[in-house]
Amino acid sequence: MLRLIEFLGIIAFALSGLIEARRKKMDFVGTYALALVTALGGGTLRDLLLSKRPLWVVHQEYPVMIMALVIGALVIFRLKKFTLTEHTITIPDALGLGLFSASGTASAFDVSLPPFVCVLMGVLTATFGGVLRDIACNKIPVIFRRTELYATCSFFAAAAYWCGRALGAEHLLAAIASIIIALSLRLLAIRFHLRLPL
Amino acid sequence: MLRLIEFLGIIAFALSGLIEARRKKMDFVGTYALALVTALGGGTLRDLLLSKRPLWVVHQEYPVMIMALVIGALVIFRLKKFTLTEHTITIPDALGLGLFSASGTASAFDVSLPPFVCVLMGVLTATFGGVLRDIACNKIPVIFRRTELYATCSFFAAAAYWCGRALGAEHLLAAIASIIIALSLRLLAIRFHLRLPL
Amino acid sequence: MLRLIEFLGIIAFALSGLIEARRKKMDFVGTYALALVTALGGGTLRDLLLSKRPLWVVHQEYPVMIMALVIGALVIFRLKKFTLTEHTITIPDALGLGLFSASGTASAFDVSLPPFVCVLMGVLTATFGGVLRDIACNKIPVIFRRTELYATCSFFAAAAYWCGRALGAEHLLAAIASIIIALSLRLLAIRFHLRLPL
Repeated sequence: MLRLIEFLGIIAFALSGLIEARRKKMDFVGTYALALVTALGGGTLRDLLLSKRPLWVVHQEYPVMIMALVIGALVIFRLKKFTLTEHTITIPDALGLGLFSASGTASAFDVSLPPFVCVLMGVLTATFGGVLRDIACNKIPVIFRRTELYATCSFFAAAAYWCGRALGAEHLLAAIASIIIALSLRLLAIRFHLRLPL
Repeated sequence: MLRLIEFLGIIAFALSGLIEARRKKMDFVGTYALALVTALGGGTLRDLLLSKRPLWVVHQEYPVMIMALVIGALVIFRLKKFTLTEHTITIPDALGLGLFSASGTASAFDVSLPPFVCVLMGVLTATFGGVLRDIACNKIPVIFRRTELYATCSFFAAAAYWCGRALGAEHLLAAIASIIIALSLRLLAIRFHLRLPL
Repeated sequence: MLRLIEFLGIIAFALSGLIEARRKKMDFVGTYALALVTALGGGTLRDLLLSKRPLWVVHQEYPVMIMALVIGALVIFRLKKFTLTEHTITIPDALGLGLFSASGTASAFDVSLPPFVCVLMGVLTATFGGVLRDIACNKIPVIFRRTELYATCSFFAAAAYWCGRALGAEHLLAAIASIIIALSLRLLAIRFHLRLPL
């Protein structure tokens, strides 16, 4: 099940890169680059910080799958006047947010880094791809602006994962808790326009 | 004493991220992200280039302290109409500029890298956080524009540190020389609007 | 001969950073930073992803040579009203594009990474410096926009290199094929305004 959620999450993140690239009238090169950066950027930075080789460098399935997705989407958009917006991908994006928060926290937890760093790595894994996407599109990163909670959902999901593992729960259980928290908090934030007070 | 200057320098760098975030009307997430990037970004890039794990990944005091600083500052700003500008932090910023130039140069010197690379690492450690802050704020980095000397002060401070160590001085002495050079050069540059001729 | 092409390529990439810096009225610090990032940024990212120490960290000839080039160019521009445009450097830039595509692919091929990752590393090495240059200049990266083929030339050059090596050719032969493909495809793209259909 985590595999399926990871798959959905990567697709949602790649599509959010693709949506932004379409808005900026980029061609295939820009669209693929943004999709890659959004989907894999956060995990890549985390791996560099933890002195590990990023997963996609050894497993070409990730960049190949994203290329197939981008080509498929661009062909479909060309054939029919179909537009994709962030609304369409809200649910898979929130699932990915939760799972990547958990998996990022796990990478740091497994090498015994201090608690706050574990949580930061979770948030960074889940959100930094989107930050890089916005910077490459010449925008101030959306999650830095006063908008519906996003990084905050990731923070609580990562913290929940850490607490779960610290209390002895297994990865699977802690990750599911993390996903449920991120998904419900994110949907509540969108529904009720929740923002940070500060 | 170096510990105190490091503390002051990190606070000054974090505050310069916070000032920029306020200008762009960011919320807590953006403010904390910018404060982190400005304070720790230069050292993190240097450590990645030297294949070392960045210090804050193992020592959570750094990100925790910056979070406390940001929360404290945002609460104070909310309570009283108090504004903070770059002028307020000129002195601690210049102290940090000198110390980080020295410590960046030291990291490279200690693993016997060639002289010019040592100095570049010093400049990068001291200035790259600010470059990343400006890029994330969708601005051309301030230090790239024709403005009062900043990277140049760091360059001379790093070069002085390298010369000191090459002549047999200890880290403490060379770092103090470095800080004095950066501080005096920077204050002169601001006072007399010194710019590069080219 | 590859040495000569590498030299030409680095000079062309550094000059393209310098041209952009001039347009944005940067001073020496910004000009040198952009020249460095454009010339060495792609290879640096590739080395970080492959957990290697970037070449220029150990060989100071690279940053020293680029500094000499930038100082020389700025002095010449100051003395005579001479302007340099991208047109002037088309040929060395295309040579560099081919060679860096080959050398990036080689780095990944030599450590037995999967084919698609090898090709991606080639493209990244050849094009990412320019992407960073544009981001630091507060522009959407040129190669992401619908414009004359650039990353695509690098992709075919990298793929050709990989096929050559996989078929048993030596580095030199495969690199020459790569350079010829990148150069001719790039010149055709500029001459006939070739763009991607998607």
